[in-house]
Amino acid sequence: MVVRAAVAGASGYAGGELLRLLLTHPGIEIGALTGNSNAGQKLGALQPHLLPLADRVLQETTPEVLAGHDVVFLALPHGQSAAVAEQLGPEVLVVDMGADFRLRDAADWERFYGSPHAGTWPYGLPELPGGRAALEGSRRIAVPGCYPTAVSLALFPAYAAGLAEQEAVIVAASGTSGAGKSPKTHLLGSEVMGSVSPYGVGGGHRHTPEIVQNLSAAAGAPVAVSFTPTLVPMPRGILATCSARAKPGVTAETVRAAYEKAFADEPFVHLLPEGRWPATASVHGSNAVQVQVAYDASVGRIIAISAIDNLTKGTAGGALQSMNIALGLDESTGLSTIGVAP
Amino acid sequence: MVVRAAVAGASGYAGGELLRLLLTHPGIEIGALTGNSNAGQKLGALQPHLLPLADRVLQETTPEVLAGHDVVFLALPHGQSAAVAEQLGPEVLVVDMGADFRLRDAADWERFYGSPHAGTWPYGLPELPGGRAALEGSRRIAVPGCYPTAVSLALFPAYAAGLAEQEAVIVAASGTSGAGKSPKTHLLGSEVMGSVSPYGVGGGHRHTPEIVQNLSAAAGAPVAVSFTPTLVPMPRGILATCSARAKPGVTAETVRAAYEKAFADEPFVHLLPEGRWPATASVHGSNAVQVQVAYDASVGRIIAISAIDNLTKGTAGGALQSMNIALGLDESTGLSTIGVAP
Amino acid sequence: MVVRAAVAGASGYAGGELLRLLLTHPGIEIGALTGNSNAGQKLGALQPHLLPLADRVLQETTPEVLAGHDVVFLALPHGQSAAVAEQLGPEVLVVDMGADFRLRDAADWERFYGSPHAGTWPYGLPELPGGRAALEGSRRIAVPGCYPTAVSLALFPAYAAGLAEQEAVIVAASGTSGAGKSPKTHLLGSEVMGSVSPYGVGGGHRHTPEIVQNLSAAAGAPVAVSFTPTLVPMPRGILATCSARAKPGVTAETVRAAYEKAFADEPFVHLLPEGRWPATASVHGSNAVQVQVAYDASVGRIIAISAIDNLTKGTAGGALQSMNIALGLDESTGLSTIGVAP
Amino acid sequence: MVVRAAVAGASGYAGGELLRLLLTHPGIEIGALTGNSNAGQKLGALQPHLLPLADRVLQETTPEVLAGHDVVFLALPHGQSAAVAEQLGPEVLVVDMGADFRLRDAADWERFYGSPHAGTWPYGLPELPGGRAALEGSRRIAVPGCYPTAVSLALFPAYAAGLAEQEAVIVAASGTSGAGKSPKTHLLGSEVMGSVSPYGVGGGHRHTPEIVQNLSAAAGAPVAVSFTPTLVPMPRGILATCSARAKPGVTAETVRAAYEKAFADEPFVHLLPEGRWPATASVHGSNAVQVQVAYDASVGRIIAISAIDNLTKGTAGGALQSMNIALGLDESTGLSTIGVAP
Repeated sequence: MVVRAAVAGASGYAGGELLRLLLTHPGIEIGALTGNSNAGQKLGALQPHLLPLADRVLQETTPEVLAGHDVVFLALPHGQSAAVAEQLGPEVLVVDMGADFRLRDAADWERFYGSPHAGTWPYGLPELPGGRAALEGSRRIAVPGCYPTAVSLALFPAYAAGLAEQEAVIVAASGTSGAGKSPKTHLLGSEVMGSVSPYGVGGGHRHTPEIVQNLSAAAGAPVAVSFTPTLVPMPRGILATCSARAKPGVTAETVRAAYEKAFADEPFVHLLPEGRWPATASVHGSNAVQVQVAYDASVGRIIAISAIDNLTKGTAGGALQSMNIALGLDESTGLSTIGVAP
Repeated sequence: MVVRAAVAGASGYAGGELLRLLLTHPGIEIGALTGNSNAGQKLGALQPHLLPLADRVLQETTPEVLAGHDVVFLALPHGQSAAVAEQLGPEVLVVDMGADFRLRDAADWERFYGSPHAGTWPYGLPELPGGRAALEGSRRIAVPGCYPTAVSLALFPAYAAGLAEQEAVIVAASGTSGAGKSPKTHLLGSEVMGSVSPYGVGGGHRHTPEIVQNLSAAAGAPVAVSFTPTLVPMPRGILATCSARAKPGVTAETVRAAYEKAFADEPFVHLLPEGRWPATASVHGSNAVQVQVAYDASVGRIIAISAIDNLTKGTAGGALQSMNIALGLDESTGLSTIGVAP
Repeated sequence: MVVRAAVAGASGYAGGELLRLLLTHPGIEIGALTGNSNAGQKLGALQPHLLPLADRVLQETTPEVLAGHDVVFLALPHGQSAAVAEQLGPEVLVVDMGADFRLRDAADWERFYGSPHAGTWPYGLPELPGGRAALEGSRRIAVPGCYPTAVSLALFPAYAAGLAEQEAVIVAASGTSGAGKSPKTHLLGSEVMGSVSPYGVGGGHRHTPEIVQNLSAAAGAPVAVSFTPTLVPMPRGILATCSARAKPGVTAETVRAAYEKAFADEPFVHLLPEGRWPATASVHGSNAVQVQVAYDASVGRIIAISAIDNLTKGTAGGALQSMNIALGLDESTGLSTIGVAP
Repeated sequence: MVVRAAVAGASGYAGGELLRLLLTHPGIEIGALTGNSNAGQKLGALQPHLLPLADRVLQETTPEVLAGHDVVFLALPHGQSAAVAEQLGPEVLVVDMGADFRLRDAADWERFYGSPHAGTWPYGLPELPGGRAALEGSRRIAVPGCYPTAVSLALFPAYAAGLAEQEAVIVAASGTSGAGKSPKTHLLGSEVMGSVSPYGVGGGHRHTPEIVQNLSAAAGAPVAVSFTPTLVPMPRGILATCSARAKPGVTAETVRAAYEKAFADEPFVHLLPEGRWPATASVHGSNAVQVQVAYDASVGRIIAISAIDNLTKGTAGGALQSMNIALGLDESTGLSTIGVAP
């Protein structure tokens, strides 16, 4: 059986990464590719690294173009997915790589995105407790944000095991592709090379409520989150440095054991041997996640750090992994744990 | 009056940056330059950006070579400064850019550096409470570490004003020059470009006790510090993202007021207008410090972020600023608040 | 005497670099700053590295605003300078950092720029034969392009000494600031980091006729130029790799001698000792030029390579150097030969 | 049939890239991995991006360890391959990724490498005229150098078609991984970020005679080569900018036709549509080659530019492609034409 997949929003970074992965997925046939402002252009001019698709022409994102596919991936600006999804039948697997269906709390959505809440779909982070079950057989998937992916994987084992107090402090560094492909002055190479800068400081970043949602679910109680993202001079990768005060009685051993248990059977999460720490280069272009954790006895805090590729595990790879589960395919099909380094 | 200055360790990054600044200091005559493994070589081959000094030849670091100077700067590996300083008379201003004389607690020194404590010199961070007074007329100065400079300037106003609980969580990003000029595989361009990685996690970095010392002094009580440094792909710059739980009654206004007061008369610290955040590119090559602070009411934490150039304000510029104070010169002589950007 | 200078186009990279230099020029008072699309904004938001000017407000580029200055620098898109210059009296020194007045051949201008030729002003590259004399006392200066500056300094000695055949092959690498601050997709950090790519290949780059003009003048005969610029992942810097077939009888010694003679008294050009080669980092932020030359006997070609900072010697530093000459000031005032490295 | 492959020199960049590719090659079983100075260490500590091999332990490079494999890849410093190869039977396919067996002229070898010539093996660049035939069934392969791969593919069509004069001028930009993983000061991240610099100027680079060999073979007559390599701030990728004077009667059309013919059936070489130019990011991590060519009528030169990934097509991918041919496998097995971008 061949699965026919369409990609709405094929000219951006998320769409391009998804196509890169779909090209090596043995069960997928790449169908319609759309991109409104670039409709009519060849993909070779927009995504020159995707040589096998160089002569494919982008179409408009219309119901007619998207019809006749088994899977439709949406890589659209937030707020646009619901209208497109409505046009697709319930038997079509719709995978939204945008933010529209991630949050369960409508008030959170409205506060952070300023528009009416479109709904909540099964959440595409299989490694979370109960994560796989929610995806099996589903025909709607909300792909997590890149930061929530990195942060949740770093911290949920501590919360699920009841080891951490309910306040997490997170500082994450992201490559520039996370900010998208629309030209903006502050994203120019001249501006970002040689510079590190924070943004969305003080709780303002839209991924904050999603992180709160995931950690609170793991903890079974509300977790407060201080989240500061920073932009660093590289195209890809997220390093999330997360910490929380340990509950009384926690030791380095109990922390290590909780993480070993959480990731024992995970195909993509690599809990590093003690003494080694994640680096984004190691997961460049791969769906792997590097995690390490330590207990700092001098301050009584658990420090958990993860590295992902924001475009792969953080977006398109995570989308494909969840698609595999939803369709009953082997979860790892078309996905690699091998990074492209140096 | 011309001040004659020698630099021991002129072939490394700290020594090179110091020479860059000394060349534009109107009151300084550059005397002996030493560099043991490079003795006999011309500076032009080692520091090709210092064109006016291209034909100067490095000498061995001996008492005879260092004799006859008003100021001797030491840019040596830690553990070597005491032996050199002993040979210099009490009337000579000795400015140690290494770690040897920064810590007041001998046990801290021995735990983190593994050698006997050499002593404690006046600490070269004039912006701290009482910082300038400690330096005036002094003939020995311990230049702070680059991370402690960035972190202490970001957080001391909150502690000095009694606004923050005594646990600080700090994640800092540093350019690679902070790791020095000795060739090591993990510092190769191929390794660092495209990668962010942490090191010294869990309280192991040697700058941790120095940060504890500074924040505790500002608070008048012990402050616990969770400090995680990360290496980012740029040659220079530190961005320190720092936070602490606010004490009851704290508001955004009290926080802002405390920072405005702390930096009102500081020539090098720029508390940014509200809504703008520091970027390391803005202080590239300058002695300026960008600071911004926010109160995140949703989690009750104060977030303070600073950007410095690790080689300038974080090392050589800080050394020169303290030298100016010790010698009774204008504090800003030979120092710039103008960054080289983009 | 204080010279009062205005900068039209203060929000871009050329304008920002000029302001950085003017701030340290002892004889200059910075007057009006204009920037049409950014008029009304504070410079601190647009050029955050220029701390001393943070509160200056940009104005519209009008005759009234520019009136009353001794020097007016124009950092405008090409085609706009003539209209502004016409409004300024003949006693005002107008320094055009754009392309409008560089070319002597009106047909060249029209072919490469597609608009009527505005005229030709004295050319601001003092190191060329006769270059200084053309600038002394002048009240109009055309600042050279960044590539022509790098290439002309690398090759004119070979042509002026009659050592090279009249065909030069040039491949130059430029940092991204040379492409300006307007947001464009292909200049995004995500696109340029990790990539090298050529543009304007095959004689299409607008700096080609300017290079031809300079080399032909040095040779006293038409020189054909094959010029290929490439974009490399760094914010600043140009490395120009230039070669030409040597005329019969040329030896390594005659080549070296010609270059030593050409640059013997030049304050900014550093002909490197034999065996060392230019690197853009060495001239980062400085007005210095590194040049090296070799004679490759196996192919009979002269290879000359230069490194400049495209924003400093290649634009704003070159402008200031020429201004100094025109005004009768010391040529080096406000300019440095010290790079900011690493 | 499963082919069992050993890799001698698995801890360096070439060995690591080869393993990355071998892991996805369906017909290969990865056997012994050796690395003398790192023998006894786990690959996870040395190549953390190769997650599936993290627990493999490096062994010494001895005949016993390398015995029992169908293919042995040698990623050793030059001069060491012959001794190892002698110990392996004639039925074993030995693929040398070093320089030892590339040159046909012993005098060239001795002049550039300073040691006795070890011999000449079939040359692993199948795209050259007669290239595939030389590899079919061979049990010894000399993998080309990274620069000769890029340059030869850019220029051989012009020479094979008799369009170009016998002097080529080449300037190539390479990422830092081409300089290897041994720690050296000038390869530190602090040194290479923000800098472009040439090396081996004037005919001194060891890849020069190999380029001469390839172009002369294509031309059927000696071609003189002026080759200048430069180091640019990125981990991977080569952009080779090549030009030669066109022979009389050459037009843009004849040039284009020659290139279209040369690459019509090549699975890895992508002659770009007219008007688009190569970029190294587009071939990052892939075995693809981007080529474009133009005829600059104003100077009468053919300009050909190619982009490759120096570690993939330039080293390990080229090795695997040649192995596939030698073993009678499909040439593209285990190799991708899809780049990892941005």
